Amino acid sequence: MSANDQGPRIRRIPDGDDRERLTCPDCGYIAYENPKVVAGAVVSVEGRILMCRRAIEPRKGYWTLPAGFLELHESPEDGARREAWEEACARISIDALLGVYSIPRISQVQLIYRATLAEPGFSAGPESAEVRLFEWEDIPWLDLAFPSVRWALDDYRARLGQSHFPPSGNPAGMTGDLF
Amino acid sequence: MSANDQGPRIRRIPDGDDRERLTCPDCGYIAYENPKVVAGAVVSVEGRILMCRRAIEPRKGYWTLPAGFLELHESPEDGARREAWEEACARISIDALLGVYSIPRISQVQLIYRATLAEPGFSAGPESAEVRLFEWEDIPWLDLAFPSVRWALDDYRARLGQSHFPPSGNPAGMTGDLF
Repeated sequence: MSANDQGPRIRRIPDGDDRERLTCPDCGYIAYENPKVVAGAVVSVEGRILMCRRAIEPRKGYWTLPAGFLELHESPEDGARREAWEEACARISIDALLGVYSIPRISQVQLIYRATLAEPGFSAGPESAEVRLFEWEDIPWLDLAFPSVRWALDDYRARLGQSHFPPSGNPAGMTGDLF
Repeated sequence: MSANDQGPRIRRIPDGDDRERLTCPDCGYIAYENPKVVAGAVVSVEGRILMCRRAIEPRKGYWTLPAGFLELHESPEDGARREAWEEACARISIDALLGVYSIPRISQVQLIYRATLAEPGFSAGPESAEVRLFEWEDIPWLDLAFPSVRWALDDYRARLGQSHFPPSGNPAGMTGDLF
């Protein structure tokens, strides 16, 4: 189906609301769109960082951290653990919240945790072409999938050796847009 | 309209997906439901806490913190500031992230900040019957609107005098359900 001629596609202000929502002229449904939560983790193994090369769009072929959209009835920590399992077949232990990043243009709030492997082993899940551990200096900095991957890695690095800290936000002035 | 006979109402697994989504048999729309972000703040004024008595359901008549659903293209901090303005006509300055709470049953992720008034003055917005400052011991503990209001207040109290701390999560074993 096309997003343009089916489903919620007419912008109007519903009764009792104060802003436009996408509504469906066929069935009357009001799609209350809200920002989406992305949960993920910087997973380290003896100082090396676990990264996934994306097998799917967007940014197919580029490197990212295991992360993805939180599902219904899921806590952010559970979401981060599930994504590590789905994308990297890795069981992780979360130890801190590294960053709360906001990408307003695409209405994402990202909660990125610091984690280690809870048990040995990882491999590429269906959405990953490859999963590898990188030494810091070998991270493919020029082939990162999203700006917030860089932010989370930098915040991971800045917090090495620290156990009690507030999560970072976006770097000053950064909106997370790719281009 | 009734939620049962119009709009997305048939649960099925869309092609290429791995879990059931609500779909509309009339127009074909797939409603990807995701958790919602609530942004809010514990706002203090010389040690007293700003609270709002709800003028709307759910929990009409009970006391809460200024907080509400994050809107599209909004950062959580901006959302917390907007909610303080809408519900308490208060301009606030955020200084720390107090808590990241998860209410899995209703698929909410709450980001509650610590804040002060950025300029004097507050009053009830349209969703509040009353807005007041409470000394800690006068907070209407038995008439709080939601369990997470208590969590945020307790975390505010626990962090008094601290400026550098990780946000708290749910108290151990607590799911945020009312009953």
